[in-house]
Amino acid sequence: MSIITLTTDFGAGSVYVAAMKGVILSLCPSAVIIDISHEIPPQDVRRAARVLCEAAQWFPPQTLHVAVVDPEVGTDRAIVYAEIGGQRFLAPDNGLLSLLAAKTPPTKLIRLAEHSYWLEPVSPTFQGRDIMAPVAARLASGLAPELLGPPWPELKTIDWPKPHESPHCIKGEIVEIDHFGNLITNIGAEMLAGRLTDRRVRVQCGQYETWSIYRTYADRPRGTLIALIGSGNRLELALVGDNAAHRLGVGLGTPVTLFWE
Amino acid sequence: MSIITLTTDFGAGSVYVAAMKGVILSLCPSAVIIDISHEIPPQDVRRAARVLCEAAQWFPPQTLHVAVVDPEVGTDRAIVYAEIGGQRFLAPDNGLLSLLAAKTPPTKLIRLAEHSYWLEPVSPTFQGRDIMAPVAARLASGLAPELLGPPWPELKTIDWPKPHESPHCIKGEIVEIDHFGNLITNIGAEMLAGRLTDRRVRVQCGQYETWSIYRTYADRPRGTLIALIGSGNRLELALVGDNAAHRLGVGLGTPVTLFWE
Amino acid sequence: MSIITLTTDFGAGSVYVAAMKGVILSLCPSAVIIDISHEIPPQDVRRAARVLCEAAQWFPPQTLHVAVVDPEVGTDRAIVYAEIGGQRFLAPDNGLLSLLAAKTPPTKLIRLAEHSYWLEPVSPTFQGRDIMAPVAARLASGLAPELLGPPWPELKTIDWPKPHESPHCIKGEIVEIDHFGNLITNIGAEMLAGRLTDRRVRVQCGQYETWSIYRTYADRPRGTLIALIGSGNRLELALVGDNAAHRLGVGLGTPVTLFWE
Repeated sequence: MSIITLTTDFGAGSVYVAAMKGVILSLCPSAVIIDISHEIPPQDVRRAARVLCEAAQWFPPQTLHVAVVDPEVGTDRAIVYAEIGGQRFLAPDNGLLSLLAAKTPPTKLIRLAEHSYWLEPVSPTFQGRDIMAPVAARLASGLAPELLGPPWPELKTIDWPKPHESPHCIKGEIVEIDHFGNLITNIGAEMLAGRLTDRRVRVQCGQYETWSIYRTYADRPRGTLIALIGSGNRLELALVGDNAAHRLGVGLGTPVTLFWE
Repeated sequence: MSIITLTTDFGAGSVYVAAMKGVILSLCPSAVIIDISHEIPPQDVRRAARVLCEAAQWFPPQTLHVAVVDPEVGTDRAIVYAEIGGQRFLAPDNGLLSLLAAKTPPTKLIRLAEHSYWLEPVSPTFQGRDIMAPVAARLASGLAPELLGPPWPELKTIDWPKPHESPHCIKGEIVEIDHFGNLITNIGAEMLAGRLTDRRVRVQCGQYETWSIYRTYADRPRGTLIALIGSGNRLELALVGDNAAHRLGVGLGTPVTLFWE
Repeated sequence: MSIITLTTDFGAGSVYVAAMKGVILSLCPSAVIIDISHEIPPQDVRRAARVLCEAAQWFPPQTLHVAVVDPEVGTDRAIVYAEIGGQRFLAPDNGLLSLLAAKTPPTKLIRLAEHSYWLEPVSPTFQGRDIMAPVAARLASGLAPELLGPPWPELKTIDWPKPHESPHCIKGEIVEIDHFGNLITNIGAEMLAGRLTDRRVRVQCGQYETWSIYRTYADRPRGTLIALIGSGNRLELALVGDNAAHRLGVGLGTPVTLFWE
């Protein structure tokens, strides 16, 4: 049994997703297809990179993750097969895999070049269906990735904002907002270490501020803005029982700063 | 083959849903995962209870239904395993299972307490991933539920509005609105018995009214407000070919009253 | 292993979809259920017909496609089993299959009439759950379709707008808009043949116009309105890196005309 996950910007219920699933099942009827997300905002490679980086780690080793957020579809940008952290990936080489690769260097990189594994003719506007889906099905059926094309030297990288540490503060920013409106920062729990229980830590987010780092949402009354370490092990701001992003009017990129004495 | 259904307020395409699926498949690769809904409004335990109560009955006996709408995640509220009406459930004990239990008393209730079946460390903000998903996978693999923890005396209940009967009328209210905008009440078909074919029955919904109870939507011309018995066997109001909720501006809790002579 | 696809207007996360899946799995536990779309606009039979026609072709031969967009549910409109182009379908006979049938004549048509394969009682408002789901499960388990009811003479057809060709132009219209806002017309690539590389071809869409037919989106700078042949092999208009439908304010039915000298 082979698991293939899909991450795209096609929208749930899109005929493009259905076409990819049909192609995969036509070539590998026993594939188990799991949707990670089809709700990536159109062409938002960064968002796809974050979603894939967070989600992939929870899947069984050797799961094949297919990601199609591909503004340059049909041009000469590469489509790559990558092995990273014991998981397998198929994606355009446009930065989509660069957050994963920043955590754990790829152990194999191959450029898809061998046409005989593709559907023909290949639509220049939908290589997810005509190249990536059939290649995924063949990998799931046991094809050796080396047959797909030549080694590829290096993944394209994109810049990921890093928090800045100084003696009495850490400056980061909001890098994800979940469906609940919780504001997830790029400040990892490991940066806070000794300060997780310091009640005098002050967290500033845009014009708002809050003190202390709590354990979970219900630790404070409804409507309170709190900071806590979220399930992705990063500093997060939440409005208890409410949607912080909507209420506070803050968004991706809003600075978040921790202060202490 | 074991079926595991998921009902959450995480939103379709959420990385949290993907993480739960990844954990389940890592521990039970043969699990068949079916999404009931990830569109429960955030923290709306009542809505989740209704969806689960309506959906679960259609699944094969012994299906395992995992429901995560959990405003008190990480506090000392219990997470329970329950057997109700031949189906199996994992959910926080916050009322989510209380509508099911009001129909059919649970035949087994266990509080999840045995840490060795959980992922470690458990995030205090995402026990769906770290407690419920691994426990679901283990149950699907055949683990005896008794090993999960001690018996649990009783499910938390929440109040469910009941219709009020008097000699010439029944007063209920709208308790669900479907994707078509149909207005589903808490008045069960069994309460109407002899009156289902009485053309002089009057149905009032907020400021609107209609006569008779019809068999199906297309029994009246487009744009007509009609009452009928919906597929959940309850009195329902619909605007033929249109969205009653949007057009009439009524919502959950709006009183619906039947009158007859 | 049997694949059953679902296409409905129930909305993702709808309890109606869950009920159909539960019924299918209760009667055919090994069925593999694939969602094509539950995002068909309510009662939009045309849209469902287009989605199904585009998606079905990519699935393995003999896949069973169940489509429920059924404004006349519970009336005497037929529910039919159809074999078209090597694929199998269950749908109300309301035009939903007519676009598929216009491409390839059905090789078998049967009206569902044999109650013993249905759930009892059948809700007059949800025959997807009580007739189509159990019949799908039984077909997937190997039931001969001839047992479902008598042959059915002919599918109901609905009108599909056809492009109009004259010596120096082709007039079509927008018939689909995808999640990216790309405007897909009913002008097939085969009508353009010799003109695909003619740089002087002019494409007019409402009050906007553009020249030439490009290969893929990234062939022109961001924000440019371009014409190209989309992945469904039809003329498409796109705003590079943006949403043409939102920006240009055009919609389904907007005329699209190609001119050349």
